[in-house]
Amino acid sequence: MRTIQWNAENSTVRMIDQTLLPVEYREIECENLAQLCEAIKSLRVRGAPALAAAGAYGIALASKLSSANDMESLLKDLKNAARIILATRPTAINLGWGVNRVVKAVSEAYDTEGIRNIALNEAQAIADEDVQINKTLGKHGASLLEDGDTVMTHCNAGRLACVDWGTALGVVRSAVEQGKDINVIACETRPLNQGGRLTTWELMQDNIPVKLISDSMSGYVMRHELVDKVVVGADRITEDAVFNKIGTYNHAIVAMEHEIPFYVAAPASTFDFKGWEGSVKIEERDPDELRYMQGVQIAPEDVPVINPAFDSTPMEYIEAIITEKGIFRPPFLIDEVRT
Amino acid sequence: MRTIQWNAENSTVRMIDQTLLPVEYREIECENLAQLCEAIKSLRVRGAPALAAAGAYGIALASKLSSANDMESLLKDLKNAARIILATRPTAINLGWGVNRVVKAVSEAYDTEGIRNIALNEAQAIADEDVQINKTLGKHGASLLEDGDTVMTHCNAGRLACVDWGTALGVVRSAVEQGKDINVIACETRPLNQGGRLTTWELMQDNIPVKLISDSMSGYVMRHELVDKVVVGADRITEDAVFNKIGTYNHAIVAMEHEIPFYVAAPASTFDFKGWEGSVKIEERDPDELRYMQGVQIAPEDVPVINPAFDSTPMEYIEAIITEKGIFRPPFLIDEVRT
Repeated sequence: MRTIQWNAENSTVRMIDQTLLPVEYREIECENLAQLCEAIKSLRVRGAPALAAAGAYGIALASKLSSANDMESLLKDLKNAARIILATRPTAINLGWGVNRVVKAVSEAYDTEGIRNIALNEAQAIADEDVQINKTLGKHGASLLEDGDTVMTHCNAGRLACVDWGTALGVVRSAVEQGKDINVIACETRPLNQGGRLTTWELMQDNIPVKLISDSMSGYVMRHELVDKVVVGADRITEDAVFNKIGTYNHAIVAMEHEIPFYVAAPASTFDFKGWEGSVKIEERDPDELRYMQGVQIAPEDVPVINPAFDSTPMEYIEAIITEKGIFRPPFLIDEVRT
Repeated sequence: MRTIQWNAENSTVRMIDQTLLPVEYREIECENLAQLCEAIKSLRVRGAPALAAAGAYGIALASKLSSANDMESLLKDLKNAARIILATRPTAINLGWGVNRVVKAVSEAYDTEGIRNIALNEAQAIADEDVQINKTLGKHGASLLEDGDTVMTHCNAGRLACVDWGTALGVVRSAVEQGKDINVIACETRPLNQGGRLTTWELMQDNIPVKLISDSMSGYVMRHELVDKVVVGADRITEDAVFNKIGTYNHAIVAMEHEIPFYVAAPASTFDFKGWEGSVKIEERDPDELRYMQGVQIAPEDVPVINPAFDSTPMEYIEAIITEKGIFRPPFLIDEVRT
């Protein structure tokens, strides 16, 4: 089962509900756009590459459900669906990328059946390409890992963040596939604990040895020589910085202090060729994420909170960026990635 | 109400149950050594200076409860009690310091009544001195803070960690008492969230402005110039390193990278004049602390965990150590503190 896939039997979008993991594994079916949007909003599906597929499948789903029998009405329905999907996670660029790629593809159709076929085919292509990209990226990255390495990672840049295989964890999977013995240290990743809940779970499913630490223990494990390399994912990469889940910057500084290589694994689609560190607005999330943990109060209910979703790590802390196009070592010209 | 105090009415040790804060404020009475040890082990009372008082009151309590009516049996009971108390938190040097000071004091007694009186008086003296020491330490430290400063702190080195006033937060309180406008950023301090639960709570009680962040956000707030100084407490200080709550080392590295002064506030009793970084055994705590949060499962129930209670920060990251004897700047001769 992929993280998200099309169920051809009943024309629904099937996904692993990530909000229930690791306590419960449950697959859910989104039969209509409202259900899909709820799933995106509630983070039942999350992770940049998985959201691209979710957005794309959303348009395919809307094309199947629309009762329109002329092209103009159907295209209008799809534009409407696109608008609704994009509103669920306004900062997630990959969501928009997936939606727009399908909307653009259907403009080649000659009739309503063509629109419906192209929409589904394009969504499938996006999902398949994501897996292919991760496998290629993984193979490149695996060349950086040696037999016996322990890799520390942050958040979940695994198959649950993608359609399958994963980016940072894809590198680990590819190394393991090559017969290397790799151990992982997963940082729990406050405040939403994607590392503690998802990275641990998916590695345990694959029998890849993993140990859980709190984010604040990265210095301890490095000082005690328990980490050989750090590999993380990315949400956006500008010429001067990598934007990733809050906490990444701390680990990068601490890794450099211990002379441990810090790698970023991300598809080329993550690069923002126009932006720079200061141009990217960082999403501030709900303060209650730090005041409550799955409904349990863990801080005064009215304490003021700073809760940025991401931080930016300047390029000088990064040993290399692993993409499906190869490995890029800063300082690199961002144009190298583009070509 | 102090964090911990002797209840003369019924010869019990009364304390604020810190495991319930900030949701509930409750005072509890320890009527016997088993209850006191449970309270120490479960962190109902925690923090280096408060543990010195807890250990001292533990010996006083044991002397009251012992049915021995000759000096030899009573002293044997107290030695036994000392052994039991020390086993609750093996890395906490102050616990042993409090216990041993009372045990040593009672050797001056001439009879069993003398032992019992001296034990209680000595425990009371330790508690009173702690408050006095923190006020003196706070005044020294306040000279390092400027009007308008924002101080980042980790864990709880506040009045809840002491008998009263606090060490790191004592420095903040003393500065505020001097009329300075001080803001605090509290790191939540995984896995037991003493920063999120206790530091926020006690500062809000005193109307000192505080904002909560996750431990992984320290780099973010420093990079965004939201922090002027870092002040933390300490559990043990050797010639070459400061042992404090896990996560301190990360903040120290990140602070140095941003050229933000990193101060340690601790009474001279925290110094271990014989030890060095490698000689101190760091207590590994229950893995379930990372798998569950107040009973709620937040990671796979069988995931392997690394869970050290403390980390060690080498002296080169530390701008100064604030004690009741004055401010010491590394590299300093540890003998300076002793005298």
